[in-house]
Amino acid sequence: MTVSALAFADSTVETFDDIRTARDKPGAVWVRASDATAAELEHVADVFDIHHLSVEDIRNDVRPKAEMFDDYTFVLLKTATLVPEDTTFREEIDIESVGLFIGEDWLVSLSEHDIDAVGRIWQAALDGDQRILRGPDFIVYRICDGLVDGFFDVLDQIEAQIETVEDAVITDTSIETLESINNLRRELLSFRKLVWPTREAVATLARGDPEEVRPETEKYFRDVYDHLFQLVDLTETYRELASGARDIYLNSLSVSTNEVMKKLTVVATIVLPLTFVVGLYGMNFRNSPYNIPEFGWTYGYPAVMVGMLSVTLILLVYFRKMEWL
Amino acid sequence: MTVSALAFADSTVETFDDIRTARDKPGAVWVRASDATAAELEHVADVFDIHHLSVEDIRNDVRPKAEMFDDYTFVLLKTATLVPEDTTFREEIDIESVGLFIGEDWLVSLSEHDIDAVGRIWQAALDGDQRILRGPDFIVYRICDGLVDGFFDVLDQIEAQIETVEDAVITDTSIETLESINNLRRELLSFRKLVWPTREAVATLARGDPEEVRPETEKYFRDVYDHLFQLVDLTETYRELASGARDIYLNSLSVSTNEVMKKLTVVATIVLPLTFVVGLYGMNFRNSPYNIPEFGWTYGYPAVMVGMLSVTLILLVYFRKMEWL
Amino acid sequence: MTVSALAFADSTVETFDDIRTARDKPGAVWVRASDATAAELEHVADVFDIHHLSVEDIRNDVRPKAEMFDDYTFVLLKTATLVPEDTTFREEIDIESVGLFIGEDWLVSLSEHDIDAVGRIWQAALDGDQRILRGPDFIVYRICDGLVDGFFDVLDQIEAQIETVEDAVITDTSIETLESINNLRRELLSFRKLVWPTREAVATLARGDPEEVRPETEKYFRDVYDHLFQLVDLTETYRELASGARDIYLNSLSVSTNEVMKKLTVVATIVLPLTFVVGLYGMNFRNSPYNIPEFGWTYGYPAVMVGMLSVTLILLVYFRKMEWL
Amino acid sequence: MTVSALAFADSTVETFDDIRTARDKPGAVWVRASDATAAELEHVADVFDIHHLSVEDIRNDVRPKAEMFDDYTFVLLKTATLVPEDTTFREEIDIESVGLFIGEDWLVSLSEHDIDAVGRIWQAALDGDQRILRGPDFIVYRICDGLVDGFFDVLDQIEAQIETVEDAVITDTSIETLESINNLRRELLSFRKLVWPTREAVATLARGDPEEVRPETEKYFRDVYDHLFQLVDLTETYRELASGARDIYLNSLSVSTNEVMKKLTVVATIVLPLTFVVGLYGMNFRNSPYNIPEFGWTYGYPAVMVGMLSVTLILLVYFRKMEWL
Amino acid sequence: MTVSALAFADSTVETFDDIRTARDKPGAVWVRASDATAAELEHVADVFDIHHLSVEDIRNDVRPKAEMFDDYTFVLLKTATLVPEDTTFREEIDIESVGLFIGEDWLVSLSEHDIDAVGRIWQAALDGDQRILRGPDFIVYRICDGLVDGFFDVLDQIEAQIETVEDAVITDTSIETLESINNLRRELLSFRKLVWPTREAVATLARGDPEEVRPETEKYFRDVYDHLFQLVDLTETYRELASGARDIYLNSLSVSTNEVMKKLTVVATIVLPLTFVVGLYGMNFRNSPYNIPEFGWTYGYPAVMVGMLSVTLILLVYFRKMEWL
Repeated sequence: MTVSALAFADSTVETFDDIRTARDKPGAVWVRASDATAAELEHVADVFDIHHLSVEDIRNDVRPKAEMFDDYTFVLLKTATLVPEDTTFREEIDIESVGLFIGEDWLVSLSEHDIDAVGRIWQAALDGDQRILRGPDFIVYRICDGLVDGFFDVLDQIEAQIETVEDAVITDTSIETLESINNLRRELLSFRKLVWPTREAVATLARGDPEEVRPETEKYFRDVYDHLFQLVDLTETYRELASGARDIYLNSLSVSTNEVMKKLTVVATIVLPLTFVVGLYGMNFRNSPYNIPEFGWTYGYPAVMVGMLSVTLILLVYFRKMEWL
Repeated sequence: MTVSALAFADSTVETFDDIRTARDKPGAVWVRASDATAAELEHVADVFDIHHLSVEDIRNDVRPKAEMFDDYTFVLLKTATLVPEDTTFREEIDIESVGLFIGEDWLVSLSEHDIDAVGRIWQAALDGDQRILRGPDFIVYRICDGLVDGFFDVLDQIEAQIETVEDAVITDTSIETLESINNLRRELLSFRKLVWPTREAVATLARGDPEEVRPETEKYFRDVYDHLFQLVDLTETYRELASGARDIYLNSLSVSTNEVMKKLTVVATIVLPLTFVVGLYGMNFRNSPYNIPEFGWTYGYPAVMVGMLSVTLILLVYFRKMEWL
Repeated sequence: MTVSALAFADSTVETFDDIRTARDKPGAVWVRASDATAAELEHVADVFDIHHLSVEDIRNDVRPKAEMFDDYTFVLLKTATLVPEDTTFREEIDIESVGLFIGEDWLVSLSEHDIDAVGRIWQAALDGDQRILRGPDFIVYRICDGLVDGFFDVLDQIEAQIETVEDAVITDTSIETLESINNLRRELLSFRKLVWPTREAVATLARGDPEEVRPETEKYFRDVYDHLFQLVDLTETYRELASGARDIYLNSLSVSTNEVMKKLTVVATIVLPLTFVVGLYGMNFRNSPYNIPEFGWTYGYPAVMVGMLSVTLILLVYFRKMEWL
Repeated sequence: MTVSALAFADSTVETFDDIRTARDKPGAVWVRASDATAAELEHVADVFDIHHLSVEDIRNDVRPKAEMFDDYTFVLLKTATLVPEDTTFREEIDIESVGLFIGEDWLVSLSEHDIDAVGRIWQAALDGDQRILRGPDFIVYRICDGLVDGFFDVLDQIEAQIETVEDAVITDTSIETLESINNLRRELLSFRKLVWPTREAVATLARGDPEEVRPETEKYFRDVYDHLFQLVDLTETYRELASGARDIYLNSLSVSTNEVMKKLTVVATIVLPLTFVVGLYGMNFRNSPYNIPEFGWTYGYPAVMVGMLSVTLILLVYFRKMEWL
Repeated sequence: MTVSALAFADSTVETFDDIRTARDKPGAVWVRASDATAAELEHVADVFDIHHLSVEDIRNDVRPKAEMFDDYTFVLLKTATLVPEDTTFREEIDIESVGLFIGEDWLVSLSEHDIDAVGRIWQAALDGDQRILRGPDFIVYRICDGLVDGFFDVLDQIEAQIETVEDAVITDTSIETLESINNLRRELLSFRKLVWPTREAVATLARGDPEEVRPETEKYFRDVYDHLFQLVDLTETYRELASGARDIYLNSLSVSTNEVMKKLTVVATIVLPLTFVVGLYGMNFRNSPYNIPEFGWTYGYPAVMVGMLSVTLILLVYFRKMEWL
């Protein structure tokens, strides 16, 4: 576990007692616990009187949300990363939870694993970034902003895949193409399930419902909210694109079957009658006086050949005109 | 019938008069009736002035709900178990109703059959679990929590079936595959019909609308509410997955038809012209001076054979290039 | 027309003047007019100062609703019966309107035809059923309850038809199957259009919005409301089942086409090459020194026969392995 | 332009000055301008201080609406007529706007063309229909009622077309059938776009939001509202019917393709093997000692014929049993 | 960058200091910055105490919105132009952002590029158009109105494309047709995403929520709102038309496949039996006493020919009657 307590504009501390000390000191404090076990998370929570159900929410697969308690506001957020699955060619969205507890003059961020977006803000705070040191609510804004940037990265990758699939659908009618479209739709579904409640949670902060969010910070959350709205829009657009790609795929299959049928019909329509004709002249009516008269003609064989050739040419022209060839 | 009355932190009682006694004693009491006939349920209801319509709701197939009455709050919940149907390969969701009547200092739980989730809390209460003995509203929370755990079990089984079906759709184009997808969709439909109103009922408790729910218990119901939200999300996801599997199934059928058509066309395109050629040399123009000239050639037969072989090879190469073979 | 006036706990009266007398007597009165012409309905309405637009609503095809007027509440309800259509095999839902006007101490029920559900309550009132004599609002509850029972009967019949259709879709690919599924969907659509507004109307009564509904009757209307919710749920489920049956139908058609294509391809792939071979040995190169060598072999004919048989067997084994046979 | 001013229970006037005079006289006045140019509409509007944007709304294709201004309420309504299109077989819904401005004691109705429904009320008012002379709001009700009757006429025609199409879909698989279904869906779409906002506008009047609508007129608007609700319901039903017809159409095409494939397979399966057999006996192994033995049989030819006939009959029975014939 | 400041009814100024001067002068001022870099936009924003997040919104792809700040209201709008894409035949909707900041007596319009609709109002203001000089809110109305006119232009072009596609779907079954339908749906999707939030933003102004919008201007915004509603309606209609065109396309493909299959079946059904017959008379049973009896007939050959001709004619009549030809 990495627990770090940062008294604003102050030194860094490392043990539980230090956290308690930092908490009691005048001025704001940010305590960040990542890569932590259940017991360690509970321990940090106890110091700040955080309800154990909230800590459990971080470990379970609970939707992003903003929940107001008497002494603090609990914001549960999620990161998203697109990772290739181990055994198959499919990708999946990897999701990590981070819980932010915003008090009057303190902020506790808890997560089971180390979250990049949080770490970067932490480092900036350590480096004395004055903008961050404005207060716990502003740090929460910065973290939200970082997570949303991560969402955009995921959508960019999904967009690239959609473009690949859109090129593939016309030429490749194998079932794998449909599977990858299906997988894209699945990813977008998961992503939407992530973005929608995040947007709701941020809306709560943007409206300034929790008293821990100061009026001057609301407009920053409104900005994050706008970005989340845009993510929802993009997700819907990509879902439509994936549906469109699927339609074209299914259709190019129908076009292909139609083309195959036309080819078969062309071959059969040309060759079958010719086979009938040559079969005709293979009949054994040689002893009958009314035998096949062409056998008696001088130019019988050439006439039959010319006849068959003519029929073939006429049919070819006809099929060409029908655009079957 | 099993009727049991549990005066909190007190002894267990077993008859109707005991219930009346337990009710009148100071302190909270939990009366639990399971595996009961209609008459027995009515009898228990009379002791606590419970409206007979509510008791009928438990026996009929009424949606989960939370209803506030003057003296008590009525919470109707349902358990879900996935059971294989007797005659066919289909599964169905088996549903049991449990009615919870929450009074100021009493709790009555009524059900036609014994409900596992309720029995377990009952046992814990008998064993003196102090957390449960906090009050009737906390017991209701524990029961809700147990039922929701049961919902997750059902969804886990459905997920396993979806994975089986997802593997089947590509290889097995028999109509049974579609029927099992259809059955999955039916189960998910039933399940959603169960989870949605349960979520609404729990939301009523989480908002603390009934005065029998104390403020400190609300956050526990909020936790159950979050889990129910997650169940709704999962149900939607699984419905999408089932739809996706169905699309792939329908499509692999189209791909199969397309492949069959290609094979037929390949065979017909190669063999039909050859049959025409051999028919040609079976014609009986033997007496004509302009007879089939190849008959007069020394290498007539080998030439024809080589010609046919060449055409066959060229067509095979062409079809291979078209990826029809 | 049958107009009957029932002074509560009193005698039955039969003429318009009697109605007026009954209305003015102390105590509640229920006036019931069924199988009535427009003029007769208007006449009864005049006695109770009922607005003529409401009476017109009963005769026109207006949605069920509850509307509050100054002196009374107007509840328009509908009965549903499934009747076979005259000329075709299709069924249709037959709908009758009944208008209930609830005053302080009177109830007027108007309908163009005799409504069973109303008649039964009327008879029970005549027989002195004390529960019914509680007041006009309770009679309205009983009528609602009776109509909803009729809705359940209709749904039961629809369910039976769905089960028939579900069995039919796999074996019978004739267009009639799809038509009967379509007809079921149409019935469910009509039914939903009936149940939804009825639920809304009953919700108005269950909330106790009209002052004519006494608080102690509200819970009875809540019970009817729950049943209507259940009807809506069932209707949705049956719609999904009908859609599922339709999908399976459409698909078993695709499976059938696929199977037919496979059979054709098998026949063509086996027979066409054999026909080519026998055509080959029917060629007339008899005079060429490089004539078909097999003609010179002692075992030429048996060898050809064995060759053809082998190819046929190999192809049969191949198709069997491909599960085309 | 036809501008007519009708002082209630008074004489008819014809010029702009007369309008001004009529407006200033005690008692209510109805000014009706139809078949008017933009300038003329503006002129009338000026007399009553009507905002020019509202007048523009009448000329532009703005949705039906009820808008409250300081001195008057503006109700924009639309008529609907089904007209055959000039060049093709398609019909289209012809829509005309009529603007109603309801003041305390005046009503101005403006339209670019003469509206039948308005003209009829106007005539009735001239004829001294006392019901109409109740006030401007009642005239508006009568106009709404007339327009809604026109909507029902349109829906009746659409219903007749749907019935025609429903009969056509099974027998006629030409693409024109789908086009006419598509056209019906387009009409219903336009119609719904017309009815929905009209319903909203009338709802505003039925709730009595504008003070120009007196309480005793509200119930009349509620009646119109109910009719509009019914129109919305019918539109949805017809949309479903059109979708159902489309499904049956698409399916009867699939059934047809399936039937054609079966016929082809039957012909090929019966004739191809027979052709192989006769080809077999056309082989030239005459000089081989192990020649085709049947040639040596006395009954060789009849035996072959009987064999082929038997195979044909067996196959016919088989296909009959498979219901392919 | 072009920054222009317009003191109402005053001269035009061109530098940052001039802006400051213009701002401080009594009377309203409009500052317009277009074709500006980020730094330049920030600079103008500073003069009016505009929040930097709003300026960033103009540069990022944020949805249209109206946001109220303490001292001003921020309205973010977008223009739409249909431009052909560079590399392919597809079109795309080109979108430009313009930010309007409405203060008590000032208006700042910021955009990265020069916006035509804004430029035209600017020119009219310079030319002393008195209507525009009514105040900042009226200028905003004029700009909104101009942008909405641009939206109508885009929709007109899309409508023209839909008509082209509707003609194409029946004759042209190539996959490009589906791609262009898909592209149309994509454009309409983008367009809807543009119009919906614009409508919401204008609704905020039409309701007069921001105090910078005077009551007398509200009705103008209501007019723009009505036009945006109409745009939304049209977009939905065009989406339905595009879907209808797609259905017809997919179906004309099925009709085509059905026709091809019928042709193949007709050819096979006529020619295959004839080929069998001529093969029959090619058999070599010449030495058998029960040889093919027709060989012994005088009119054997003509009889066979007549028989084959009859069968062919009967089949042709049959297929013609079945409408397969």
